[in-house]
Amino acid sequence: MKLREVKKIRKRSVEFLKKAKISTTTSEVEKVEIADFGLNDIKHIGLELIVYENNDRYCAKELILFPRQICPEHRHPPIDDRNIGKQETFRCRWGDVYLYVEGTAEKNPKALIPRKYRPYFTVWNEVVLHPGQQYTIAPNTLHWFQAGEKGAIVSEFSSTSIDEKDLFTDPNIKRTPVYE
Amino acid sequence: MKLREVKKIRKRSVEFLKKAKISTTTSEVEKVEIADFGLNDIKHIGLELIVYENNDRYCAKELILFPRQICPEHRHPPIDDRNIGKQETFRCRWGDVYLYVEGTAEKNPKALIPRKYRPYFTVWNEVVLHPGQQYTIAPNTLHWFQAGEKGAIVSEFSSTSIDEKDLFTDPNIKRTPVYE
Repeated sequence: MKLREVKKIRKRSVEFLKKAKISTTTSEVEKVEIADFGLNDIKHIGLELIVYENNDRYCAKELILFPRQICPEHRHPPIDDRNIGKQETFRCRWGDVYLYVEGTAEKNPKALIPRKYRPYFTVWNEVVLHPGQQYTIAPNTLHWFQAGEKGAIVSEFSSTSIDEKDLFTDPNIKRTPVYE
Repeated sequence: MKLREVKKIRKRSVEFLKKAKISTTTSEVEKVEIADFGLNDIKHIGLELIVYENNDRYCAKELILFPRQICPEHRHPPIDDRNIGKQETFRCRWGDVYLYVEGTAEKNPKALIPRKYRPYFTVWNEVVLHPGQQYTIAPNTLHWFQAGEKGAIVSEFSSTSIDEKDLFTDPNIKRTPVYE
């Protein structure tokens, strides 16, 4: 991503945080992580994040999703004998989130996926999260989510995040953002 | 605490969450934990909590403090060979919080402690948290905090909570609330 675009998306992220009445510091705002997953199509597939804390025991982030933006399907695999993979709780703070996990597929899902990405979305057990609702994802299980029409803010509470270990269904994805 | 009082305090807690624009579910609201620390003086010493998630890896809570309410001095001791004690990050979401940790004592602290409780407040290194600001407390270190004049909402991100293991400076304190 060009740094100019990164700055533009950071600015938009802050606007969404304001809509949700979530306070942040200037230094957090300047470091909002823009994850385009290497697909260069952040309108459809992308995620904006503020990492509040990530230590060797727990992690807390605020996830910002623009309208209909999708965090693509992935899982958090076991890391070593002491870490069975990241477990995470998504708590919807603002907007609506359509979360999909392993299990019985929803026949009429609320999510909308551009046709070209369809092969890389394989779990369709639907969990709708309105503000104040949350769901916990077991380690090493597939999941993905999309914001509703107005976008969404999601608090993520979890064990330690090691994002570079995430395994995505779409082989074209690169998790670590590259800012030029 | 009488159940009638508990209900009244729960109702007030919800009013503060609304002021802070924090969404919760009905079942969360019905289970707000009212911690009076066994002192029967919740106006001065007390804390209201919603535990969003507490598993064997991480924990997330929303803490509600009424104006000038105090969470009394305590530490989270080592539990066993694998748990060096709870580590926690306090993130101020709304209102102001005066947090006190081990270190150089502040000469003119913002906190106001009723005289009879003064002996049980021994650490005075002041950290002022405004909305969007946060601070991480190392395991097994003394800390306490007080809300400012309008009250406060604080997100707590942490390792697993085992509240009944907390060690308080005031020997009169009982952490586990008793609702009659």
